[in-house]
Amino acid sequence: MAGELPSVEACLERYIPASDLADVKRILYGGEARKLNLPDAAVSAAQERDFELLGYGFDAAPEQLRRPRIVRVGLVQNKIPLPTDTAVAVQVAALHKRIEEIVEVAAMCGVNIVCFQEAWTMPFAFCTREKLPWTEFAESAEDGPTTKFCQELAKKYNMVVISPILERDEIHGGTLWNAAVVISNSGAVLGKSRKNHIPRVGDFNESTYYMEGNTGHPVFQTQFGTIAVNICYGRHHPLNWLMYSMNGAEIIFNPSATIGTLSESLWPIEARNAAIANHCFTCPINRVGTEYYKNAFTSGDGGKAHHDLGHFYGSSYVAAPDGSRTPGLSRIYDGLLVVEMDLNLCRQVSDIWNFKMTGRYEMYAKKLTEAVQPYFTPNIIRE
Amino acid sequence: MAGELPSVEACLERYIPASDLADVKRILYGGEARKLNLPDAAVSAAQERDFELLGYGFDAAPEQLRRPRIVRVGLVQNKIPLPTDTAVAVQVAALHKRIEEIVEVAAMCGVNIVCFQEAWTMPFAFCTREKLPWTEFAESAEDGPTTKFCQELAKKYNMVVISPILERDEIHGGTLWNAAVVISNSGAVLGKSRKNHIPRVGDFNESTYYMEGNTGHPVFQTQFGTIAVNICYGRHHPLNWLMYSMNGAEIIFNPSATIGTLSESLWPIEARNAAIANHCFTCPINRVGTEYYKNAFTSGDGGKAHHDLGHFYGSSYVAAPDGSRTPGLSRIYDGLLVVEMDLNLCRQVSDIWNFKMTGRYEMYAKKLTEAVQPYFTPNIIRE
Repeated sequence: MAGELPSVEACLERYIPASDLADVKRILYGGEARKLNLPDAAVSAAQERDFELLGYGFDAAPEQLRRPRIVRVGLVQNKIPLPTDTAVAVQVAALHKRIEEIVEVAAMCGVNIVCFQEAWTMPFAFCTREKLPWTEFAESAEDGPTTKFCQELAKKYNMVVISPILERDEIHGGTLWNAAVVISNSGAVLGKSRKNHIPRVGDFNESTYYMEGNTGHPVFQTQFGTIAVNICYGRHHPLNWLMYSMNGAEIIFNPSATIGTLSESLWPIEARNAAIANHCFTCPINRVGTEYYKNAFTSGDGGKAHHDLGHFYGSSYVAAPDGSRTPGLSRIYDGLLVVEMDLNLCRQVSDIWNFKMTGRYEMYAKKLTEAVQPYFTPNIIRE
Repeated sequence: MAGELPSVEACLERYIPASDLADVKRILYGGEARKLNLPDAAVSAAQERDFELLGYGFDAAPEQLRRPRIVRVGLVQNKIPLPTDTAVAVQVAALHKRIEEIVEVAAMCGVNIVCFQEAWTMPFAFCTREKLPWTEFAESAEDGPTTKFCQELAKKYNMVVISPILERDEIHGGTLWNAAVVISNSGAVLGKSRKNHIPRVGDFNESTYYMEGNTGHPVFQTQFGTIAVNICYGRHHPLNWLMYSMNGAEIIFNPSATIGTLSESLWPIEARNAAIANHCFTCPINRVGTEYYKNAFTSGDGGKAHHDLGHFYGSSYVAAPDGSRTPGLSRIYDGLLVVEMDLNLCRQVSDIWNFKMTGRYEMYAKKLTEAVQPYFTPNIIRE
């Protein structure tokens, strides 16, 4: 963490003179998101509990026939509070406690839908390729202790909770999945959305643990908006975002775990491109900090065996359908990003830009069907 | 132009202290592209001819079985040299002359493939909705005067030339198309690629003039690399980029015409996302300057009738498959961006990130086929 830049956005604010700053920010980030006035009690609670609290708002034009559909989402990024060789149950309890104190502040800020980071109840241990003890972090999506914990939070705070966990699927041979459980503000489990695309890149050896998700692209119609969860590596696949959007998602969460050397220059691009291309809000979340493992592992890059997979750079943000975005949470601290959005903006931007109308999806359905044939002939023109 | 910021990248270089600059640039732009040493004669010729000349290079790791496949591309952005009410033939001649003097410098810089901006032989007059005289700028793609002009350039400089024009298709009722003609370094016309997605946004009333392209997603196998041309608004459609890539394109050019108030915050995102998602190089090009029309027109936004559609912000750049990108050409000057790339980087990055391998295109071909049915039922989960 020493030497890690806390935030690009803060750096721009600090050094670029006012005469140019507005232009630089407009070009890099789009129209500036309104700053939210958060309650003093929330601000001091966040300070006491040692996490960053930021709030922004996206507005839409007034319409005659629809009222504004205002929703507040909360994105949570956090370090693991205990070393990875602590007993599994103790680690989980510490994470529950940490999340509980952040969600309490989210509630003070009026958050309606909260989303935690990928596999939030555990260290991101898939780099090790070891099974025990890591697979012991897996739980039932429907009635595991973490789901029960989240149901309590949901009821207590009248909040939709998105809880991405390592799932143990007992009714299908006890297989593991990377899944997000979606819990209604009533406390009911609405369902789950499994990670559709599994990485085989760098230290992200997740294909050793679980397979490509088989839940498709469900969207969840909650009291506060129609939402979907695109887990981590699915961020790199434009078709994955598209199908969530085709099913009606207005907010797509992207709980992730990714490190600086691998993906940091992709991070500001992909989820924001998805918000633009699909006329929706996207909410990428990344964990923070460096996680150390007792047993060394290699990275398939000729380097020495080592004990950590590098710095998770946080930087969670929200991108809006008009191409603008909030600043990110910091690269190094735990944080809660509260974003108010008028969901009417989605259809308004869609009616302006018309990407769905001009998308020619019939042509692509046909072309893609041809292209996946094993002996597909590409359309190559030679002299 | 007065008051227009010349370049975000130059602004960062100027104000951010060295201690943070490397991190800021890495996070915003990816690994820094190598600066090219361009010949002094080219540098002074560019100065004399009053256009910006920038050069960058992207390298790949050495392989055992493939030699590096080095190619230099040239991206040209320019203002219209004459007022829009000058006689059509005179405007075209002035543009030919301007491009000729830029291409000569490109040749000095060893450029192998050059691409001009969208509809480069004319002002971007579609905002007016007037037919004459603008439709008189249309030419045959196969043997119009501009194609002949480009064939001469191609032969003279042993350069592949991509020439995006307003096309008149005499064998199909004299219809108009927005098309790019691809000319081999031998001087032969390889073929054409028509604009697949037509905007209906703001002052971009192009659907008044021509229809969605019917040439599909051809790629052109040239001596220097396998290339494709995704014209302008196709930039917003991830499936369009994907199909060019599926057909084998390693470099996808994106000749465009777009203005600041509409799209500038999308500009750094979309083509770069396409380079990442498809493991290829992308080359977005935008014209510069403000074009005035004699007859006022309205913009469908309740504002007053006016004589220009705003500032074309240039900012042409090249994005690499590893998520990095070059700085952009300026927002206000004519320019030539020379970029050297080792095409071996495409497959190397693909083997690292595996987006094609993990893309699950069969699933999406099926889902998209379902989703385009008029009475498709979205996958919505309700409480």
